[in-house]
Amino acid sequence: MKEISGGVCAAKGFVAGGVHCGIRKNQVKNDLAIICSEKRCSAAGVYTSNLVKGAPILVTKKHLADGCAQAVIANSGNANTCNADGVEIAEKMCALAAEALGLPADDIVIASTGVIGQPLPIEPIEAGVKALVPILSADGSGEAATGIMTTDTVPKEIAVEFTAGGKTCHLGGICKGSGMIHPNMATMLAFLTTDAAISPKMLEKALNDDVKGSFNMLSIDGDTSTNDTLVILANGMAGNEEIAAEGDDYAAFAEALHYITTSLCRKMAADGEGATKLLECIVTGAKDLKAARIAAKSVICSSLVKAAMFGADANWGRVFCAVGYSGADVDVMKMDLSFASPKGTIQVAKDGAGIPFSEETAKEILLEKSIQILLTLHDGDAEATAWGCDLTYDYVKINGDYRT
Amino acid sequence: MKEISGGVCAAKGFVAGGVHCGIRKNQVKNDLAIICSEKRCSAAGVYTSNLVKGAPILVTKKHLADGCAQAVIANSGNANTCNADGVEIAEKMCALAAEALGLPADDIVIASTGVIGQPLPIEPIEAGVKALVPILSADGSGEAATGIMTTDTVPKEIAVEFTAGGKTCHLGGICKGSGMIHPNMATMLAFLTTDAAISPKMLEKALNDDVKGSFNMLSIDGDTSTNDTLVILANGMAGNEEIAAEGDDYAAFAEALHYITTSLCRKMAADGEGATKLLECIVTGAKDLKAARIAAKSVICSSLVKAAMFGADANWGRVFCAVGYSGADVDVMKMDLSFASPKGTIQVAKDGAGIPFSEETAKEILLEKSIQILLTLHDGDAEATAWGCDLTYDYVKINGDYRT
Repeated sequence: MKEISGGVCAAKGFVAGGVHCGIRKNQVKNDLAIICSEKRCSAAGVYTSNLVKGAPILVTKKHLADGCAQAVIANSGNANTCNADGVEIAEKMCALAAEALGLPADDIVIASTGVIGQPLPIEPIEAGVKALVPILSADGSGEAATGIMTTDTVPKEIAVEFTAGGKTCHLGGICKGSGMIHPNMATMLAFLTTDAAISPKMLEKALNDDVKGSFNMLSIDGDTSTNDTLVILANGMAGNEEIAAEGDDYAAFAEALHYITTSLCRKMAADGEGATKLLECIVTGAKDLKAARIAAKSVICSSLVKAAMFGADANWGRVFCAVGYSGADVDVMKMDLSFASPKGTIQVAKDGAGIPFSEETAKEILLEKSIQILLTLHDGDAEATAWGCDLTYDYVKINGDYRT
Repeated sequence: MKEISGGVCAAKGFVAGGVHCGIRKNQVKNDLAIICSEKRCSAAGVYTSNLVKGAPILVTKKHLADGCAQAVIANSGNANTCNADGVEIAEKMCALAAEALGLPADDIVIASTGVIGQPLPIEPIEAGVKALVPILSADGSGEAATGIMTTDTVPKEIAVEFTAGGKTCHLGGICKGSGMIHPNMATMLAFLTTDAAISPKMLEKALNDDVKGSFNMLSIDGDTSTNDTLVILANGMAGNEEIAAEGDDYAAFAEALHYITTSLCRKMAADGEGATKLLECIVTGAKDLKAARIAAKSVICSSLVKAAMFGADANWGRVFCAVGYSGADVDVMKMDLSFASPKGTIQVAKDGAGIPFSEETAKEILLEKSIQILLTLHDGDAEATAWGCDLTYDYVKINGDYRT
């Protein structure tokens, strides 16, 4: 897959940007972002499965009911969740963006992220939209990515080029982590844009199929957010014949989508709250996809595995333990396990039991910043990957007093 | 309920003790414990639901198949799990204890706790059993409780007196935490003894009914251990007519049992790895018991709630978030929430939304060592309590390098 620059503006006809409008009082960091397409787009979204849902999700769902949208407004610093006036404020934000962009309000996607249960004042947003709309540009992906960051330490963006119907198409995205991340339909906030022409129905199918193996396989801390939102806008400006059914073009689109979504998952996991290491658990030889996914995700979610990886301790028994309680249909007496990193690979268990290995070599491998936990089940052909990060002092520090 | 001293030896006819035999090499701390009854006992056990099961569990299950046992041998420092010779070693331990105690090997309950996947040498245990059996005594509960400790900072024991069939009966127990605690059938290791006469069938029923509202409502870190074992021995020496059916005596027994098990849960939660605070989530007004239990346990398991409590931060949105993703059948728009401790009670949310409250008062309440999270669902009459602890730097430290 050919990676290109430009993030959410890599696709033709998209502009973006971000500003500090003052929702976040303690820091002069962007807290408002807008993404806008020149043409109306096919659009699809997936959202948190949490029963407590942010007000912006209720509004976005309504606006995407017709499968179309043209712009996104998002803020950080306040989740606009569990507020009595939440829906009203979210609708006002859409109206402000719509007016400034010259679009109908129901073509605006809205998302918010930050503290739950604190009223979101509309005044800074009103001023912020006025300042931001005139400076939206095709170079603005990075500013927009910064505008949706909360505890993230780096903005997250990516884009690729692919071919559909003989035309060069582009697909890019931005997202933010980095705590309360255990998506169950989508992750905290991710916005994708493409100039490929694709029908709303096929776009929705592609997105729903993709998240099962991408965002839903990511966990930072096991807490499914109230505001998870993943939205994709497709404006068709690449000029390809609209993808309206499965086939080669749909496959090319789905492949590009999966590349983007899994790249964003890796970026989020590596930048998880307090994280020093990216963890990937790759399960092979599973009986079926369900078993592979459940096992991989359970390992990534285990506090004990995460703490051991922080300490570069090859405590493989915790990996087996996490598979054992996962509920996955596995034969624990057939499990093999290795750890890998850029420093090499070391096998630590075979047939469900430990084997002798060099603790020194294991330590050297686990001291790297990117660790693979390779679990082979010898039970079939299914495979799955899950992404997470280590559990560190800084995770505790960040979350011991997040609101101040 | 009348608490008494004596722990696992409070009931008539039980002796216990513990010694350092050398399984734990780095520390001179007890690592072997024995509990023995003068008479053969009705016995029941519940065990981990983890598919990866410690070898001692396989042996104990076989020995308790007839509903009877007379003694317990347990070691810390090594879980005897994922070892090729695990069952053989566990059977040897039973044979050693049986010989020294003059009992049949299949009346011995066995349990191990510690590191997974390291061979357990039989030699220190052989010497340990010889040293320990002669010094077993009715004062030995504390030494036995120390013998099963891993990362626990304090031994955990309790006993009560109750009346059944006009006779004074006693029920006591010891247990150990304090990481890899998220019981799903039982907790890591807990041994209970009683002199009440009760049939094996009713004992099993009482234990199985009890754990749903006691040990299964406890979580330190969300990791269900491979070695969870809870066993109760009832030797009948109180002289009451054997409890062989439901009725007043069974109810008195069940009440005493619940007092003991929930007291042990509180002790384990308060001494969770790295913990500075005991957390109790008390859910009231739930639609049914299932909803109450799922909601309470989800709150206690949330890394974000746990970290906020460590920081004495009244970040109540995280509590609502954890209820929302729990899968419990709740109406999130009806939820009320308060925090309480010995310093007082403060309401922070009503009808699913935040209400103004004094951050200063909340901080004062949350700085205490024992915190109650009081969630009212206004949806019915069911109630449940779950126990956990805060997430701290020390949890990460302890588990970053547990094996060394």
